[in-house]
Amino acid sequence: MNQIDAIIQSINDFREERNWGEAHNPKDLAISLSIEASELLEDFQWKSSEQAIEQNIDNIKDEIADVLIYAFTLSSVLELDVEEIIREKIKKNGIKYPVKK
Amino acid sequence: MNQIDAIIQSINDFREERNWGEAHNPKDLAISLSIEASELLEDFQWKSSEQAIEQNIDNIKDEIADVLIYAFTLSSVLELDVEEIIREKIKKNGIKYPVKK
Amino acid sequence: MNQIDAIIQSINDFREERNWGEAHNPKDLAISLSIEASELLEDFQWKSSEQAIEQNIDNIKDEIADVLIYAFTLSSVLELDVEEIIREKIKKNGIKYPVKK
Amino acid sequence: MNQIDAIIQSINDFREERNWGEAHNPKDLAISLSIEASELLEDFQWKSSEQAIEQNIDNIKDEIADVLIYAFTLSSVLELDVEEIIREKIKKNGIKYPVKK
Repeated sequence: MNQIDAIIQSINDFREERNWGEAHNPKDLAISLSIEASELLEDFQWKSSEQAIEQNIDNIKDEIADVLIYAFTLSSVLELDVEEIIREKIKKNGIKYPVKK
Repeated sequence: MNQIDAIIQSINDFREERNWGEAHNPKDLAISLSIEASELLEDFQWKSSEQAIEQNIDNIKDEIADVLIYAFTLSSVLELDVEEIIREKIKKNGIKYPVKK
Repeated sequence: MNQIDAIIQSINDFREERNWGEAHNPKDLAISLSIEASELLEDFQWKSSEQAIEQNIDNIKDEIADVLIYAFTLSSVLELDVEEIIREKIKKNGIKYPVKK
Repeated sequence: MNQIDAIIQSINDFREERNWGEAHNPKDLAISLSIEASELLEDFQWKSSEQAIEQNIDNIKDEIADVLIYAFTLSSVLELDVEEIIREKIKKNGIKYPVKK
C-alpha cells in the first residue's frame, strides 16, 4: 500500500471506530475543511509570519494536519486518487502559469 | 523517496521555475489555503452533496487538489513532516474523542 | 423605519422578486457569508494592504457589500435586531478586553 | 447622525480606547472578517439549520455581530459609505440576476 493510502486507511479506521461515516457527507466535510483552514489562518491573525511561527508553531502543525485529514477524508469518500488529482492540477497550473524565459 | 516527498518535490520544482519562493511566505500561504478551501465549499453552495457531485465533480477535484498543494507547500516551507503531523494529530483526536464501547 | 431596516427591506424585496426565500435557509446563508468573506480576502492575497487598495478597491467595495448583504439577510431570516446584537457584542468585548489605564 | 454611522462611531471609540488603530490594517481586518464568518459557519457544522438554531442561537448572534463589526470597521478604515456600497451592489445584482416574468 502506498504512503497516502496507508494514511487514509488510518483516518478511515478512526472514523469507523466512532461510527462517523454517515454524518460525514461531502458537503459537511467541505464545510469542516473550510473551518479548519480558517483556524490555521487564525494563528497568523494580527501577526507577521515570523511572529506566528514563534508563538504558534505547535498549533500550526495541528491545524495543517486537520486540513489534510479532512482533505484526505473527502477524497476517500468521493473515491478520488489524491496523487492523481494533485498531478493533474499541477499540469493545469503549468498551462495557466507558463514559465517565463 | 516516499510518495508525499515526491509530490512535494514536484510542487517545489514548479514554484522554483516560476521564482515564487519569496512571495510564498507562510502567512500568505495560510491565506491562500483558506481561499481555496472556500472555493471548494462554493461547489456545494445552495446544493445537496448529491447535486454538488453531479454538477461540479471536476471542479471539486481541482479545488481539493489546490487545498492539498497549499497544505503541502506550507508544510515544506515550515519544514514539517506531513505524515508525522497527521499521525500525531490522529493520536490527539483519539484522546479527545475516545471510542465508546 | 430606521436606516438598517430600510436596507434590509430592499434586500428582502430583491430576494422575494426572485423567489429565493425558500432556498435561503440559514445554513446555506452562513456558507455564503463565509464564501463572500473569503472573496474579499482574495483581494489582499499576495499583497500588502496598500497594494490591495490601489489595485482592487472597486472589488473590495463589492465584496464588503456582499458580506453585509448576507449578514443582514441571515439576521432578517433569524428575526434578529442588527443594532441590538452589535451593541450587546460590543458590551461583551468590553468585558473581555478591558481598557488598560 | 444616521444609525449606521452611530454604530460605527461606537465601534471606533471602542478601538481607540484600546489603541488598536494601527494594528487594524485592512489586510488583517479582511483576515479577521473571514475568520469570524468561519466561526459563524462552525455553529452549523454537522447540523441542519434547525438543529443549529436550537442549539447555538446565542453564539450565532455573537458571530453575526462579530462579522458586522469587522465589516463596519473595514468600511470605516477605507472611508466607505456602508449604505452606498450596499445599494450599488444590489443594483449590480439586479443586472446579473434579472427578475423572470
